[in-house]
Order: sequence, then C-alpha cells, then structure tokens
Amino acid sequence: MSSASVYDRDPSEEVLTQLRQIATKLRVDSIKSTNAAKSGHPTSCASVADIMAVLYWHTMKHNPMDPRDPNNDRFILSKGHAAPILYSVMAELGFVKESELENLRKIDCELEGHPTPRLAFVDVATGSLGQGLSCAAGIAYGGKYLDKASFRTFCVMGDGESAEGSVWEAMHFASHYKLNNLIACIDVNRLGQSEPTSLGHDMDTYKRRCEAFGWKTHVVDGHDIKQLVQVFYDARRSEDKPVMILAKTFKGKGLVGIENEDNWHGKALGDKADKIIQNLQESIKGLPAVTLVPERPAKAELQVVSTTKVVLSDKPEYEIGKQIATRQAYGTALVKLATVYPRIIALDCDVKNSTYSENLKKVYPQRFVECFIAEQNAIGVAIGLATRHRFIPFMSTFACFMTRGFDQLRMGAISLANVKFVGSHAGVSIGEDGPSQMALEDIAMFRSLPGCTVFYPSDAVSTERACELAANTEGICFIRTGRPANAVIFKGDEVFEVGKAKVIKQSETDVVTVIGAGVTLHEAIKAAEQLAGKGVNIRVLDPFTIKPIDAEAIVKHARATKGRVISVEDHYPEGGIGEAVAGVIAQYPDIVLKRLHVNRIPHSGPPNVLLDLFEISAKAIVAAVESEWSNKA
Amino acid sequence: MSSASVYDRDPSEEVLTQLRQIATKLRVDSIKSTNAAKSGHPTSCASVADIMAVLYWHTMKHNPMDPRDPNNDRFILSKGHAAPILYSVMAELGFVKESELENLRKIDCELEGHPTPRLAFVDVATGSLGQGLSCAAGIAYGGKYLDKASFRTFCVMGDGESAEGSVWEAMHFASHYKLNNLIACIDVNRLGQSEPTSLGHDMDTYKRRCEAFGWKTHVVDGHDIKQLVQVFYDARRSEDKPVMILAKTFKGKGLVGIENEDNWHGKALGDKADKIIQNLQESIKGLPAVTLVPERPAKAELQVVSTTKVVLSDKPEYEIGKQIATRQAYGTALVKLATVYPRIIALDCDVKNSTYSENLKKVYPQRFVECFIAEQNAIGVAIGLATRHRFIPFMSTFACFMTRGFDQLRMGAISLANVKFVGSHAGVSIGEDGPSQMALEDIAMFRSLPGCTVFYPSDAVSTERACELAANTEGICFIRTGRPANAVIFKGDEVFEVGKAKVIKQSETDVVTVIGAGVTLHEAIKAAEQLAGKGVNIRVLDPFTIKPIDAEAIVKHARATKGRVISVEDHYPEGGIGEAVAGVIAQYPDIVLKRLHVNRIPHSGPPNVLLDLFEISAKAIVAAVESEWSNKA
Repeated sequence: MSSASVYDRDPSEEVLTQLRQIATKLRVDSIKSTNAAKSGHPTSCASVADIMAVLYWHTMKHNPMDPRDPNNDRFILSKGHAAPILYSVMAELGFVKESELENLRKIDCELEGHPTPRLAFVDVATGSLGQGLSCAAGIAYGGKYLDKASFRTFCVMGDGESAEGSVWEAMHFASHYKLNNLIACIDVNRLGQSEPTSLGHDMDTYKRRCEAFGWKTHVVDGHDIKQLVQVFYDARRSEDKPVMILAKTFKGKGLVGIENEDNWHGKALGDKADKIIQNLQESIKGLPAVTLVPERPAKAELQVVSTTKVVLSDKPEYEIGKQIATRQAYGTALVKLATVYPRIIALDCDVKNSTYSENLKKVYPQRFVECFIAEQNAIGVAIGLATRHRFIPFMSTFACFMTRGFDQLRMGAISLANVKFVGSHAGVSIGEDGPSQMALEDIAMFRSLPGCTVFYPSDAVSTERACELAANTEGICFIRTGRPANAVIFKGDEVFEVGKAKVIKQSETDVVTVIGAGVTLHEAIKAAEQLAGKGVNIRVLDPFTIKPIDAEAIVKHARATKGRVISVEDHYPEGGIGEAVAGVIAQYPDIVLKRLHVNRIPHSGPPNVLLDLFEISAKAIVAAVESEWSNKA
Repeated sequence: MSSASVYDRDPSEEVLTQLRQIATKLRVDSIKSTNAAKSGHPTSCASVADIMAVLYWHTMKHNPMDPRDPNNDRFILSKGHAAPILYSVMAELGFVKESELENLRKIDCELEGHPTPRLAFVDVATGSLGQGLSCAAGIAYGGKYLDKASFRTFCVMGDGESAEGSVWEAMHFASHYKLNNLIACIDVNRLGQSEPTSLGHDMDTYKRRCEAFGWKTHVVDGHDIKQLVQVFYDARRSEDKPVMILAKTFKGKGLVGIENEDNWHGKALGDKADKIIQNLQESIKGLPAVTLVPERPAKAELQVVSTTKVVLSDKPEYEIGKQIATRQAYGTALVKLATVYPRIIALDCDVKNSTYSENLKKVYPQRFVECFIAEQNAIGVAIGLATRHRFIPFMSTFACFMTRGFDQLRMGAISLANVKFVGSHAGVSIGEDGPSQMALEDIAMFRSLPGCTVFYPSDAVSTERACELAANTEGICFIRTGRPANAVIFKGDEVFEVGKAKVIKQSETDVVTVIGAGVTLHEAIKAAEQLAGKGVNIRVLDPFTIKPIDAEAIVKHARATKGRVISVEDHYPEGGIGEAVAGVIAQYPDIVLKRLHVNRIPHSGPPNVLLDLFEISAKAIVAAVESEWSNKA
C-alpha cells in the first residue's frame, strides 16, 4: 500500500476494503466475546462497527501500543455498553491479547461490562449515558486553550443518550468555546433498550438541533465506509466549530435475522451466534490480510505530566480572630496554588463572585473556565481536563448545586478522576435565600464516593491548607466552604493533614467532646466559653476532614471526656458528620454520642436565628452538654 | 370596562394601560420588599414584570383567592429568585396582605427567598434553576392525557437557566407528547449573576434551538404589553405543539441607572430605591385605579382529589421459598395498585423491561409515561404530576441513575412532593454489567432527603407491601429493588408497617443480631444456617424501612444478643444501613456494631463471586460472627 495516500480523504479501494474487513472482524469479535460472557450488547456494537474501524484505523492519529501518549488523539465511547467493540478494536490493534476477549466481564479480567480507566486505552469510565461528551469537551478545551496541542478528541455516542440534558449542556459549551478540535458522532441506530428512541431515524431533527447548538453537522450513512472516511477527514479540519457526525445506522447491522429488529438490546446471541459469525466471515473470505495501521501523531508536542508537589506560594497570613469567610480564603488559596503550579485550573457555574473563584480569573484569566449554569457539564469538563494528569481542575459552585451532578461525580469516582470540588454556601447559615440554596446533603453525597476526600475547614488558614492538600491528594476531593465570615483560629504555620483532627480547646476536666466544623465549630467554641463561665469545661474538636474521619482522635478524646461525644453540624442527620462519628464510636461500648443537626426542611431567615431554630447553635450545644452532664455525671 | 372584550386578543387601550400600571406596581412592590429584606433580586423581578402582569391579569384563567382550585391555569416560576414579583402579584390580587410583603425573607413569614409550596399559590419549590419546565410538563401531561382538562400550564424561566440540560430534556419531552397546553416564556434579560449569559440577546439562536426541539416559538419585546397580550392569547390556542415565548427584556427594566447594567444581580437597591420608586410612581400618577381582574376558569371540570387509602387488589400470593426478584414483584404490585386506584401512574426511562414497570404499560397503557433516557426530567415530570394530589406517580429506573436527579429530588423534598421512586439493580449483586450500573450510594442519597421514607424490601411479599405502604405514605418514598431472584420469605398476609423491622430468625441463645436487607438478608439467613450447623445461633433482622429505621427493635434485639450487632449491605459504607444503625446504637453504651459493606469500587463478575469478594456474603457474615463471638464470648 502506498503510505502517501493511505490516510487521504480519498483512499484507494484497497484501503476501503481493508476498513470494511476490519469492521467485519470487530463484529465477529464482539459477538464472540459477549457470547463467551453470556451477556453484553453485541447489537449495539454492530451498529457502530464501521465507525470504529474508520476512526481507529484511518481518522485518528495514535499509537495503539502506548494509549496514554499525550500526543495521541483522544477517544471516548460515551455509549459505554458498546465496550466489547472497543476491546475488539484494541485486540485487533494488538494492545489487548485476542484470547483475553473471551474473558470479557469476568472477575479477573479488566475487560469489564462497561469501560473503566483500569484499561490504559480508557480515559474516563462510561456506562451512565450522556456523560462522555462533557468529558470530551474538557479534554478538547485543555488541548486547544491550555496545552495548545494539535491532537483531536473524538466522542462516539448513542442516539438514546442524546435525550440526556447533559449532552446539550456539552453541545452548548463546545460551540461557545469554538472547540473545533472536538468531533462527536451519534450512532443513530433507532432502537433503545425497551422501545425505539423518541426520534427514531429522524435525521433532520437531529441535524436541526445540533446546528442550532452551533455545531457543524453532517448526516451520513454510518455503514458506508467511504462516506465515513471523508466526513471524518473533513471533521479534523474544522476551523471554528465542533463537528457532529450523525450516522444513520442499524442496530445489529450485518447480523442476519437480528439487524434492525426489536428486543435484541443487551443480549448475547446465544445459539444464533455460530451461523451469524459464519455469515460474517464468509463476507471477508479470501481477502488479503489487513496491513493498514493507524497513523501515528505527527510530532511529540506534549510530554507526560510528572507528579509534582503543589504548595501555596505564600503561607496563610491572617490575624487570629479576624472575621473572614472560608469561601473567601478559597479564592486566595486558588491564586496562591495557581501561581506555583500552572496546571491548576478553575471552573465555575456563573457564581464565581460568590464562590470567590473569580480571584483566579482576575489574575490568570486564561486558566479560568466559565461553564455557565450547567453543573453536570462543568463536572464532566473538569473530569476531562484531569485525564492523563494534564491539569488539576478546581470546580466550584454552591454546594447544594453539586447535587445536580451526582451521577457525573459517581462516574468520576469510577474514572479515578483527580478533580477538586469546592462547594460554598453550606447549610442554614446562608440565611435569607432559603432552603433551595442551602447545602444540607452535600457531605452525605461526597462521602459516598469511593476514594473521595472530604475537607470541611473551619477558618481561613485551614481552608488554604485544605486547598493545598487537595491539590496533592489523588482522586476526587470536596472542600466545603461557608458563606458567613468566621474568626481565624489557626496560625499561618499550623500543619494540617488529611484525616487528622485538631483540638481547639481542652482541659483536664472536660466533661464531653464536642465535634463541629465550619460554622458549628465556632458555635462550639462559643458554647465552651459560655459553659466555662458556669464552671463546666468541654473539649472542642475540629475534624478538618470528614472523610477520612480521625477515628483515633475521636476515640481518644471521647475517652478523656467520660466517653461522651456531641456532634453538631449544619447538615441533615444522614451521611454527615454525626453519622461519620457514629460509625466510629458504634464499635466502642464505652463511648456514647448525641447528634445535633438540621432535622427538617429549613426556612429563610437570619443565619443566627436559623442556627438557634434548628438547634445547632451555641445555645443548643450548651443545652445538650447540660443535659448530657446532668444525666451522666 | 366592557367585559366582553377585556380578555380578547386586541383589548382596549384602557386594558393595556391598566396592565402597564400593574407592571409598574409590581416593580415598586418588588423593590420595596427586597429593600425591607436587605437582600433579594429586584432587577430579576423588573425584567419579568410586564410578563407577569399580562399572564396573571389577562392570559391566565384563575381564581386568585383559591389558588389550588384544580380548574385554575397553573403557573411555575422556574426563575425562583424572582419570587418577590410573584409575591407582589398575589398581593396586588388580594391573596397576600400587602403589608406582608415587608416581611419578605423573615423567619416568621412564608414569603421566603425562593418560592415553596408552604404558599398555596406555589405548586413546586423553585430556586435551583432549570427545573420548573419539567414540573410544568408533568402538570400539562396530567391535564391533557389523564385529567383531560382544559386548563393551561405556564412556566416562566430565566435565560441563564436555559443552559441547564434539564431544560432541554423537558423541551424534548413536551414536544414529543405534543403538550399544546404548555406555554413557556424565557425572560431573556441578557445578564447572569457574575457576567452576561453566553447567548446574551441572541434571540435568533434561542429561536432556532426551541424550534429544533419542536416548539412553536415566538420572539417578542418582553416589555411591550400589547405584544405580550397577543402572543400569549395565541399561545393558549396552539393545536399540537407546546409554545415558547422568547421575551427580549432588560434586567432592571424601568429602574433608572440600573436597567441593563452589570453587577446588579441579587442586590437590594438600598439608598437608590427611593428615587427609583418615585420615578416609577410618577409614571402611573393620575391613572384611574385598576379594575381589571383575572378571568375565572370557564367551568368546574375537575374536583379536588380527596385522599384515599390505596390497597393492593389482591394480597401477595407466593409460595414460601419461591425464587423471585423484588423488581419483578414491583411490577406485579404496580398493576394491583393501579387496578384499585386509577390515579396511580408509572414513569420510566427506557428500562421498563428491567424495572418491570412495563407491567403497568401492558395493562393500562394510558397510565404509563415513557420518559426516555432523561432522568432529571422524569423526576420533574413526576413531581409535576403529583401536584395538588392529582396523581400518585411511581417513577422507576436503575437505582444508580436516580443520582442523575439528586438536585430534582432535593427540590422535590422542599416541594413536599408525593412521588414514589423505585430503583432497581441495587449493588454488586447485578454482576457482570460492572460498577457504572451498580447502585451503591442510592440509600445515602434518599435517606438525606428530609421526610423521605426508604423501603428496602427483601422478598416479593414485602415488596408488594412496600409499594402499597408507599402509595399511602405522604411525601417522597424510595423503594430499592434487586436484580437477582431471591426466596420468598413472608406469607401473603404478613402485615408490614413503616419503621417496623421483622425478625426472620431467632433463638434463646443468639450471640449476635445480624441486620441485612435485600440480597444481604438472604446471605444472613444462609449464614445463620451455616452457623447453626456449628452450634452457633444468630438472630436475623430485616429492617424493611431504612428510614425511618426501627431503633426500638434494633436496641431490643441487640441487647438480647449480648449487645452485638452486625450490619451487612450491598452499598458503600457511608449513609447506608450501617450508618443508620450506627446512628441508633451510638447512643447506647452497651451495644457494639460491626459493619460489612462494599468498601471500594467494584468490578464486573458473577454476583455470587462479587458478594464474596466484597465481603457481604454469607461467608463474610460467618467470618464476622465468628470473630465477634470468639472476641467477646
């Protein structure tokens, strides 16, 4: 084959035939592997086989034997249930052992039911639909504006998932930022899981929607290899818009008796497989062996990012007792970190003047990404930016609105995403805006993510250190910040560690340990002062991180204070500080816990009034201590 | 005024002047109330004042003194931060005392920062942006197809929130179902919170998007009362499409020095207020008093729905020991309930053949709503259907994908929504599909919702009863169902109650109480049998509901079994059964807890292998019991 022409817009018939042959092999592989697993989605693989062959062998520039090379084009299979065809691709390319395909979905094989980054050729986990495009947009944004690299990012989606709103958030984001290096393809195979999709093969409607959202859009026959080659060739060369390829396809294409039929979603072919495989193999019988290999990236523009310890440019400097909101300290820390490490990026959803992420925008405008009011996409973009450790994204919004992207966060955890989430406006202490703006379940949500570190700093110094630690703590981190100003407690050189609590107040005669964080830590301090006036001493503990929680410190201090603990939090009862502490002390017969928390839907009102009303204020703590003390002394 | 012509498409100048006068009064009221509160969003009210005046006094047919009359047109203020203008409307209409406006955002006043259904004229809480349209679509769907009523549903949105994907899910849903009784209006005032919106005043792009999503779309000057009257008049008369009014407006319209200026989001006008109010009042000085009143609904088609006890048409009938999945029993229960009570509706997101909600579709197709793969919208539609108790929606999908709508669920809780969520495919016991499809944080999520009841039935009988109880339990309920078949444990006439656990196995000599639910309850039973073979007896407790958890039973049985409890759950450690139990026993010094749970990201594989690998199987329980027992006997 003449290499000069192989990757051209009009390749030779020989190249096209090889691509067709590859697509057929991918179908066969997918049928075989799902049959071996007795489950999986062979028909969803068959519809996308021709697209995958063209992308991996013709369009994309990549080194399949080094899938994480930063110079490779990127690929995200948003329709994650078509995983077997991705595995087949990597097997045909030689990266995965072909025999391994037979171990699909088995416990000791990384070829799982849906792709995860346990595999080197997967950047983000997919399988919850409608999320891939946001991640791809994040990768493309980083490539174009931050790394200024020439790789392209490809995302293959299903038609069913285009009903997910997150897809349209990503569409809007990509056109707003003119991500001409982003190429998406919807495999419009007409059939969902339980019935046909709502749009079926109405390619015109798809096209109008994509165009209205600012994408250059082409409708193609998704089984016409030549058309696919040409349209993807052109797509790489878009000058100012992202490109959408709408591929009209048939589910189960090429699988006789199954193609375009209902009730074949997510089923191995069973005893129908042999005949179908035989058919497919006949169709490529006698063809010369495939010699086509993917084009490698033209040049090595990018180096692998090596792990660096990130430090604040200057240590926190605050006068003890000064009133400052932790959200404000976040803005300060962000700039200090970004000054030292240029790969720190901030994202926000049109509340940057409330979360203080705007501080970064003011100093390093090119490292701030405004995501507008579209939290799901913002989270996905952050996950994309973090792939291959190219950037450390800090994504902020009101903590309550992080719930908008719980499914993205869940998938981010499976993706082992190294993203830092900063949620401001925690709890009833925001006051007058009312319950819709109060985060009271955010700790529960972030704690439930496996591997997530949850910081809940209580003053400006610990907030800055939380940001610094988060930047150095691999995986998803959450930092909860507050709206009201609170006193600075710590000196600038105080050393903080993940999972290590701080004793704020103690004496030899403490009758109970009170654990609070954020605004409730300050209430606990006030309570301690009030109680001291009555001759009662209490210990005050700042957990600093809620996950991991400092079990050792809790047990030690509880035992030093007659086995009594009170937790107090600006959060609902479930999944927050109280249950984290309960989970620790429930193992110990000599320790008891009383929990204070917001126990019902709150109300608009002044912060201090709300803290009293919902019984998480100094007054409530004093009452709880006195009741504990009089009960048990 | 001649009443014949008042509500016509071309009303007299007198009517138009009155509407202008009303809009001005609404602006004044909004400025005054936010100034009294010293916070709020007067500029976001000013942009929408003319629209509100036309809708409430001319377009909508409603009785403002009986806002929950089912024959009224419905209204949802999706841009909830403009709450003060809604309150001003209800004050000018006489439902709210005008003096009460001065108490905006105060602790003892229901005129909160954002609207909640604590107010009779609010059907759903808003304030988390981009959610109102789904709820409105749910109301419209119920009106058109289920109640077959002639009321119209109106939804006023902000432009910033149109970046939320949930809006486009709702747009798609509404056009797919031809909701011509749904009229939305975007107040395109160009300015977001922290910067201009991404589309600014690009009305053409908005129009193309809305049209591509299948809506009849009109662009109007949102401050031209006559245009608004006419376009809304026509919108009521759409024959087959929902109608979108794109209103070009200016933030702070009519507020001299503030109109169309940056940096005025969410701020009371302070000392600028007096002058501006004076200006506004001058502009309507000398006009005759407003005599216009809203048109009442033409006829009383609909009666208020009275609360009914809903019962299964037939009691559960299963042979003890028969293998059946709880998700399958859900499908059976749904039909039994719907047979008795016609207001039971099911919604699903293209997994009805997995969740078994398709059972209802087969029997009562008109009472099943396919929402396709758009969970946020499905939840919002369900919340809309449930308003005014018109329907009891059961919304199902894989439990892990419920996380997609956590923010909608959070707002649903604030809305006091009476919706039943049914999440199937709980935990690692789904097996080969892998972590993206495994719900392992769903209990944490639903438990965190205030007022939510969380059912976790462990066999077919208790599942049917859980559905029956959920239908009769006001508020959000969650029922967690499983994928694999498990043995029937209970007889058909077993009586279940919310918050009451069941003892599955007990003896005089039990050494520990094991609490499991779903698949882990069956593992606990197996463990009990294995241990009995070794001469060790354990008690097995089925909590039935995880919220509320049966604290009394836990304490009683723990004390009867040497103060020892083991919890075992197919869920992550945080916020699930273990922490619910820990929260109870942490108060008691004589009880200790060991928790078994999925402690890291799982993997594809056979269910039984996964239960062992993640140490929540009978084997793991036996090991835990033996370690507890040998430690403490």
